[in-house]
Amino acid sequence: MKLASLMHGRDGRLVVVSKDLTRATDAFPVVPTLQAALDDWDRYAPRLADLAETLEHGSVPSFRFHEHDCAAPLPRAYQWLDASAYVNHVELVRKARGAEMPESFWTDPLMYQGGSDSNLGPRQAIRARSEVDGIDFEAEIAVVTGDVPMGVSSAQALNHIRLIMLANDVSLRNQVANELAKGFGFVQSKPPTAFSPVAVTPGELGASWAGGKLHLPLLTQLNGKPFGRPEAGIDMTFDFGTLIAHAARTRPLAAGTIIGSGTVSNRGTEGGPGKPLAEGGLGYACIAEQRMVETIARGAPTTPFLRFGDSIRIEMKTAAGHSIFGAIEQEILPHAE
Amino acid sequence: MKLASLMHGRDGRLVVVSKDLTRATDAFPVVPTLQAALDDWDRYAPRLADLAETLEHGSVPSFRFHEHDCAAPLPRAYQWLDASAYVNHVELVRKARGAEMPESFWTDPLMYQGGSDSNLGPRQAIRARSEVDGIDFEAEIAVVTGDVPMGVSSAQALNHIRLIMLANDVSLRNQVANELAKGFGFVQSKPPTAFSPVAVTPGELGASWAGGKLHLPLLTQLNGKPFGRPEAGIDMTFDFGTLIAHAARTRPLAAGTIIGSGTVSNRGTEGGPGKPLAEGGLGYACIAEQRMVETIARGAPTTPFLRFGDSIRIEMKTAAGHSIFGAIEQEILPHAE
Repeated sequence: MKLASLMHGRDGRLVVVSKDLTRATDAFPVVPTLQAALDDWDRYAPRLADLAETLEHGSVPSFRFHEHDCAAPLPRAYQWLDASAYVNHVELVRKARGAEMPESFWTDPLMYQGGSDSNLGPRQAIRARSEVDGIDFEAEIAVVTGDVPMGVSSAQALNHIRLIMLANDVSLRNQVANELAKGFGFVQSKPPTAFSPVAVTPGELGASWAGGKLHLPLLTQLNGKPFGRPEAGIDMTFDFGTLIAHAARTRPLAAGTIIGSGTVSNRGTEGGPGKPLAEGGLGYACIAEQRMVETIARGAPTTPFLRFGDSIRIEMKTAAGHSIFGAIEQEILPHAE
Repeated sequence: MKLASLMHGRDGRLVVVSKDLTRATDAFPVVPTLQAALDDWDRYAPRLADLAETLEHGSVPSFRFHEHDCAAPLPRAYQWLDASAYVNHVELVRKARGAEMPESFWTDPLMYQGGSDSNLGPRQAIRARSEVDGIDFEAEIAVVTGDVPMGVSSAQALNHIRLIMLANDVSLRNQVANELAKGFGFVQSKPPTAFSPVAVTPGELGASWAGGKLHLPLLTQLNGKPFGRPEAGIDMTFDFGTLIAHAARTRPLAAGTIIGSGTVSNRGTEGGPGKPLAEGGLGYACIAEQRMVETIARGAPTTPFLRFGDSIRIEMKTAAGHSIFGAIEQEILPHAE
């Protein structure tokens, strides 16, 4: 089943979307918003699934689905916890800074609580004060949970995953170091996060969803040109079950909690940093990583961070080449005072 | 105007409460939940204020108000950003650890994004896995904002404060150091936060609310005995306008955002750490601070962190001795698997 929230008020208008993302039907007769559906999933999910089936058969009134009409699946969410599950990415960042990464990072997940009060739809612009902040994208996989009890095990945690989507965890790189040093996490360095047009149930992903990981390449483009296609199922040190269990170790998580994987990142074939697409590698899911590799190789980065007018695209396709979640496609624009 | 959410479903049932906290009337004819009221405050606030006035006059059906029936005013919120505005507190913590505090902490607020998906009502128990985690309370002032535009000034920010309440930012002290070192903020060291029974509009506080600070003592009790009464209006390095502006520097804040002051903390009369109540001081708003003062004075703490069966009470009274927000009164209990 594929679900989207069309732009409407603060919480969007829930629609069921066809597998091929061409048509949609209003979920209102079942439940008006995705948060309301998640609040009582056992009751609503079967009815939404029925609606999805009638939509596929063409036996329910439907309309053309346009990704640009979408808000984030949860336009505002009660919780967004973003991890750094691809530890390779973290190691690279530290290396570029000349800093050692603690060994414990391989066993104790990094996770921060992010803002989720103003999530961006897949076509909403990234608004920044200044290019000087070092605007970057971070392409990630994210899951939406139901209610998760405190102390859940990693294995049990997987049963609480309701939906999967893509995320762009926008980062202001030149604000990160100061906030990291303070130790209190990210407030000013993380503006609103954008999410894919569509959220899908794990069942929709077939064999690509296994072991709490999504085994497909994550496709990114910068200004219309391919930038990366790292494999989301490879080098993910902590699967989503482990991430949820980490988050729920000392507290319960309420329905509608979003957990992010952190920037997808693969090692190179020799175990070191992966190569850019232009050099035959899989490329990257954020600019910072390409800059790190440039710094390690040549002493200084050559790829700039995002500038006003730049655009970024994030998508994932089935082996047959069909878009699963629709695309995040955002322009970077100056914040209008 | 005083508002509360009685326990009911996930979002509570909004009621208007009399100034003396003895009676309440259902807000349902106006708006069913506090979040819905905040979403369209200009429309609903005048009608809720009218209801409050008729309640005071006894000209609307009402019922006995019981604090123990209350959920948090926002049982789940889209955002909880907690600061450390009483820098004295931060300096003391570092001193007890033998660590230097950066000078920038006096000008650049510390603020972390906390969980707000499962806020606790004022009488709900604090559930912890183990006393070994170092369970502590932190008594704070918190404000609820309307929609705040990105880049708001400190002065303008004050106009976006809709409500004020008390908070108990429960902390697991022995988890804090590890998470601080990781730099990503607090996930496991901050279980759900509890809030006072009642949230009040700034106008309700009269002259006590001035300059973005609440000028009254914050009363804490541990196991029924007075523990502290520090002045919330004194030694608050950053007022709420400054804290909101800090949070909104690179992103907007959505209606229903909660901003916390951090643990209220006063310096002693000679400029050093304040004294415990037993030694003629104003005491503290968390146990850690008393332990720090003990450590600084005698080399080791003597007051233990919270144990199962302990209880903590947080309240604030007018100069005439009337409770303003009702009391947070929580027992510490083991988490039932």
